[in-house]
Amino acid sequence: MKALQDKIRQEGIVLSDTVLKVDSFLNHQVDPQLMYEIGLTFAAAYADAGVTKVLTLESSGIAPAVMTALALKVPLVFARKQKSLTLRDDLYIEQVYSFTKQVASEVAISRKFLSPGEKVLIIDDFLAYGEAAFGMARIVEAAGASVAGIGIVIEKSFQEGASKLREAGYRVDSLARITALSPEGIAFAE
Amino acid sequence: MKALQDKIRQEGIVLSDTVLKVDSFLNHQVDPQLMYEIGLTFAAAYADAGVTKVLTLESSGIAPAVMTALALKVPLVFARKQKSLTLRDDLYIEQVYSFTKQVASEVAISRKFLSPGEKVLIIDDFLAYGEAAFGMARIVEAAGASVAGIGIVIEKSFQEGASKLREAGYRVDSLARITALSPEGIAFAE
Repeated sequence: MKALQDKIRQEGIVLSDTVLKVDSFLNHQVDPQLMYEIGLTFAAAYADAGVTKVLTLESSGIAPAVMTALALKVPLVFARKQKSLTLRDDLYIEQVYSFTKQVASEVAISRKFLSPGEKVLIIDDFLAYGEAAFGMARIVEAAGASVAGIGIVIEKSFQEGASKLREAGYRVDSLARITALSPEGIAFAE
Repeated sequence: MKALQDKIRQEGIVLSDTVLKVDSFLNHQVDPQLMYEIGLTFAAAYADAGVTKVLTLESSGIAPAVMTALALKVPLVFARKQKSLTLRDDLYIEQVYSFTKQVASEVAISRKFLSPGEKVLIIDDFLAYGEAAFGMARIVEAAGASVAGIGIVIEKSFQEGASKLREAGYRVDSLARITALSPEGIAFAE
């Protein structure tokens, strides 16, 4: 997606060879028009996939995911991250480890909002090691629903998440695929 | 806003005389078309207010706020809630107390994304005691910016937040104003 690549080139800040900061348009400040175009792009890619629900993880996934859900005319559910949960009976819960923060979180969705037979499009802002995407996929499958695909705004292709997800049989669509980060610049696939 | 009142009547769950659960369309599952209409409604109300930025608080404020920002053609910034922050130099930070959770959080915004002279529309999903709205307003003013107004999806008018904010001189626009919650039903203002 060219508008996204351009934005990353203009505003992305390379903090190290693995960390890219995009808090001016995605993670903290948000460019709503770009999110709208991202939503249209994911919706076009999944127009014939029979998607019944979009799923993301709070907080940074919500803006691109709600635009995708708007374009697909289906509800969005955002999973909640919590350190530990006391009321668990009515929730699907999975552990997700963050390599960036080096902490495991529980990710939870109310059982009310995911039903057997649903086709779920998972949306997330970043894909690195794939922990969050795998966690959401396990929740979808625990509910007896299926994963239509995984839509990623920015894939760090030099980390293993995308290849692991594809090896596990998931369709992965990333709008920007970064192959290398360096002080000299950001390299994209294709 | 009639579509919102109807949705609250149809899907809102009254848990007590102070607690209304709307997790089927706003707080956990999200109705994107309703969020879009909410965005258009806030944008129409503030069309002539010179708004330069929309501000909300993660996570439940993001969906209505990003739609408002889209309609106003301005950026969104979402403040982050954190228990305690170590890197503080480049942040505006305010304490916000949650009466619901009985816990104080720090709410933070990067100094990069709020500049003197900006006119900020604050959006939040709920208004009860006004703690989150006052916290965001203090951040806006600490940055030398001004609060154009406070747009609330659901105001619990029987709690003191709305009147305190208005007494403090803020413009408050609430799309649904609830005057009473009971097992028999939900009463709206007007």
